[in-house]
Amino acid sequence: MKSDIEIAQEATMKPITEVASTLNLLEDEIELYGKYKAKINLDAWERVKNNPDGKLILVTAINPTPAGEGKTTTTVGLGQALVKLGKKSMIALREPSLGPCFGIKGGAAGGGYAQVVPMEDINLHFTGDFHAITTTHNLLAALLDNHIQQGNLLNIDPRQVVFRRVLDMNDRALRKIVIGLGGRTEGVPRESGFDITVASEIMAILCLAKDLMDLKERFGRIVVAYTYDGKPVTAHDLEAEGAMTLLMKDAIKPNLVQTLENTPVFIHGGPFANIAHGCNSIVATKLALKLTDYVVTEAGFGADLGAEKFFNLKSRFAGLKPAATVIVATVRALKMNGGVAKEDLNSENLEALAKGIVNLEKHIENIGKFGVPAVVAINRFPSDTDAELEFVAQRCRELGAEFALSEVFTKGGEGGIELAKAVLNIVDNQESNFKVLYDLDQSIENKIIKIAQEIYGADGVNFTKEAQKEIKKYMDLGYGNLPVCMAKTQYSLTDDASILGRPTGFNITVREVRLSAGAGFLVAITGAIMTMPGLPKRPAALKMDITADGKITGLF
Amino acid sequence: MKSDIEIAQEATMKPITEVASTLNLLEDEIELYGKYKAKINLDAWERVKNNPDGKLILVTAINPTPAGEGKTTTTVGLGQALVKLGKKSMIALREPSLGPCFGIKGGAAGGGYAQVVPMEDINLHFTGDFHAITTTHNLLAALLDNHIQQGNLLNIDPRQVVFRRVLDMNDRALRKIVIGLGGRTEGVPRESGFDITVASEIMAILCLAKDLMDLKERFGRIVVAYTYDGKPVTAHDLEAEGAMTLLMKDAIKPNLVQTLENTPVFIHGGPFANIAHGCNSIVATKLALKLTDYVVTEAGFGADLGAEKFFNLKSRFAGLKPAATVIVATVRALKMNGGVAKEDLNSENLEALAKGIVNLEKHIENIGKFGVPAVVAINRFPSDTDAELEFVAQRCRELGAEFALSEVFTKGGEGGIELAKAVLNIVDNQESNFKVLYDLDQSIENKIIKIAQEIYGADGVNFTKEAQKEIKKYMDLGYGNLPVCMAKTQYSLTDDASILGRPTGFNITVREVRLSAGAGFLVAITGAIMTMPGLPKRPAALKMDITADGKITGLF
Repeated sequence: MKSDIEIAQEATMKPITEVASTLNLLEDEIELYGKYKAKINLDAWERVKNNPDGKLILVTAINPTPAGEGKTTTTVGLGQALVKLGKKSMIALREPSLGPCFGIKGGAAGGGYAQVVPMEDINLHFTGDFHAITTTHNLLAALLDNHIQQGNLLNIDPRQVVFRRVLDMNDRALRKIVIGLGGRTEGVPRESGFDITVASEIMAILCLAKDLMDLKERFGRIVVAYTYDGKPVTAHDLEAEGAMTLLMKDAIKPNLVQTLENTPVFIHGGPFANIAHGCNSIVATKLALKLTDYVVTEAGFGADLGAEKFFNLKSRFAGLKPAATVIVATVRALKMNGGVAKEDLNSENLEALAKGIVNLEKHIENIGKFGVPAVVAINRFPSDTDAELEFVAQRCRELGAEFALSEVFTKGGEGGIELAKAVLNIVDNQESNFKVLYDLDQSIENKIIKIAQEIYGADGVNFTKEAQKEIKKYMDLGYGNLPVCMAKTQYSLTDDASILGRPTGFNITVREVRLSAGAGFLVAITGAIMTMPGLPKRPAALKMDITADGKITGLF
Repeated sequence: MKSDIEIAQEATMKPITEVASTLNLLEDEIELYGKYKAKINLDAWERVKNNPDGKLILVTAINPTPAGEGKTTTTVGLGQALVKLGKKSMIALREPSLGPCFGIKGGAAGGGYAQVVPMEDINLHFTGDFHAITTTHNLLAALLDNHIQQGNLLNIDPRQVVFRRVLDMNDRALRKIVIGLGGRTEGVPRESGFDITVASEIMAILCLAKDLMDLKERFGRIVVAYTYDGKPVTAHDLEAEGAMTLLMKDAIKPNLVQTLENTPVFIHGGPFANIAHGCNSIVATKLALKLTDYVVTEAGFGADLGAEKFFNLKSRFAGLKPAATVIVATVRALKMNGGVAKEDLNSENLEALAKGIVNLEKHIENIGKFGVPAVVAINRFPSDTDAELEFVAQRCRELGAEFALSEVFTKGGEGGIELAKAVLNIVDNQESNFKVLYDLDQSIENKIIKIAQEIYGADGVNFTKEAQKEIKKYMDLGYGNLPVCMAKTQYSLTDDASILGRPTGFNITVREVRLSAGAGFLVAITGAIMTMPGLPKRPAALKMDITADGKITGLF
């Protein structure tokens, strides 16, 4: 089979104006970025906001394994398949981060015959949203350090600055730095560091804001530091939110692109799925729901993190009502959950499958707790045997979930027809009784405990002394009624990445609680969370190249 | 009179496709960025490269003073005036830096009725070129630190890393930092810092590269560090230039915008005028010369730095033949050169004018040394008296330079007709005998001495011990035949910013010599050069805002 980039380069893209017109967008609502990318002016929202909403289909997955699940690929393929069935549909995805492209993973816009194009642009600078976020974030950081330098009227304690800087680059050497060296004209020395841009609170805010004014208000609420007497200092205190919003005036507009089969796709925003909520922007999702009858979207990591946050954070904030959830799994990944090593995955192993399928079962149960019907999509691999596939199908039916095979990687939309039919069967005939898992007026501890017990299957939660102190601080400062964004390893239902399957009899340890007051949530951190990746020994960048006539190699 | 942004917001812009069609650009050669910005595909160059060249008109100025000279405004107004006279003309300018917008100065796209629009976009993210440069630069920096971390096969001495990081932000606290702290998995600790993006060697290279492959070769030549045994380590040694070029594939395409009067403008690239050469890209200038009969462009700072580098660096590298040079001055600035304080500039003072005009005289003489005819443009202010203007005109004629008043700030192109006629009178009737000032095979010292004596009027040059050592190193490494980029204060012909007029009997001190092997020049540094600006006590950002319907305030 051809490589992703070969397939992408052979695609017959339609001019994006044509794609936009299938959505009945008006010419004045489209801002072109070349022939195949466009931003959609928010005037479009004003025009269509009273239209009825389409059905929202969330694609999530089991806990990821090194075997790979293909969540984005399934999302894209399902969108393509719905169009093949004559349904007015579109897809809403996250924007990929530039930095990691140069490390190990290459791009992130689906794969095989279920890709979003132009993939080179999407994976490089795209329409500049991430650069706008980087600039906006670093402007606030510069204004903060400048305020300290220029007299520090707000009485900011340089040891209690919590707002770092960001770059969209995997740059380990910037994780922990000392800034402001060189003498009294060169700033005030203090410890700090850089995170990757997707970890920026600006990114989370972009994805949760309703409109430009909501964006500005949220920017104003960002807590950047504390004073010597422990009071929070916000971006508003620094008079920063106006300039920050100005810098984001185009970034807030959703980006329209297309799949290999010309299905319309909004790609907009891409917050971290651990310290943030890991979904594309609310602006894009809500507009998509007004423009088509079916919207397929995804959330980061496995369902214990991605779907939980999609429901408890994004859907709560935006008033969304997900109609169905697709849980992507592979036979190979389920066998890994059952203890099979990666090199042994090609052999049939029903015993391991039976042992590992408990991970999928837990996620099916969890989705049910939110009142949303579930469809299991098995992303089919050549090594899967009929007995293995039948075993999974059988268990899904027993648990009340629809089941479908997906072959979108090799066949595009055609390979997603079975899945699309299963999804339509649910969303057209079954009512979603969506509800969030917890109320905001519960204590911070209880919200965390509820997620840990109900979703992870934990017995309880240990809070470190530090976490307890922070929780008390946030309660005292009036942030106690915010929802909680869990930062946990994506590989396990526990906070230990090595424990697969469906563990029981364990506790989660919350080591630290951070405040994202602009985004509007508290981040409960379990274990070490990496907010600035590093590069491997031979970074992918070393193989990338472009020829005189623009041919790109090594990007995927 | 209305503010710049009020005038700009009232402009009637033409769709950029229409502007492009006046240049006979083909539809496929235009990549739209919204309705009023476009990038021009380099296919256009292939199509027109055998066309005859238009005439190139350089706009420069006397040494800048706090009174303001209006060089960019004059450049824009002259372009508008040439079109009013029925001449097929366009303008080539530098892209403004984002960071300084948030500090003191506001935007940089001309002023009054001689502006380039859409000014908000041009001054914010524009088409993302600077963000691409920031990313490209920081990728190389990350690859470098990662190489040291991952075994350091190239034997790089962390104390001899000369490549810093960049951000397009005025951020004093990042000037001098320590990176790589936190233990053995977090990078190798070393001193470093950030410069502003316009100071990046990537920026200088973008502006000097002929095409994408030349860009790649130049990237490969960048010297980022030295080994423990003193050998240079290049970006090519790090295998970085392919990925870097990929990141710049769109940034190398010139950006097309328009003036308030719909005159076509390329705005492309904007390197620092001290540690780099301070002119827009060669790609843009050369393409403009193929598309129109007259191209008006500018160089940074006064003629001692900007024009000298435009001739000795840009014109030498690109094989350009400037047809005329416009030297912008104001009566007020000449009086300041004659010792008048800023608050006394509104009174007629012929004595001070006679004393201060020597600065202009020196620049007229200097332009003559390059064999290029000069036109003096006096940017007229209401406080200028007839006697003062007549005095300046008289002296210019005595020195063999054309003279014209310019009122483009208040009147647009109409106010530049006199200047345009004076310029046309020269370029249509007078041959330019352009020549560079020095040959490359002279010693590094002699090149610097030649510039100091001939252009600045210095007696000679002192080289510090450090500078001598560096010059010897570069000679030994085979970089001796590069041209020299002078980094000197723009305010004086000497290296002391406080000495105005036309000083004599002074020496220049070269304190340091840096190598920009990718750009292809050595940087001779006289005095302290700030490569990362700071923010003032009340940054301009604090007054910036945007309303729900997109109205911008405080940007200018």
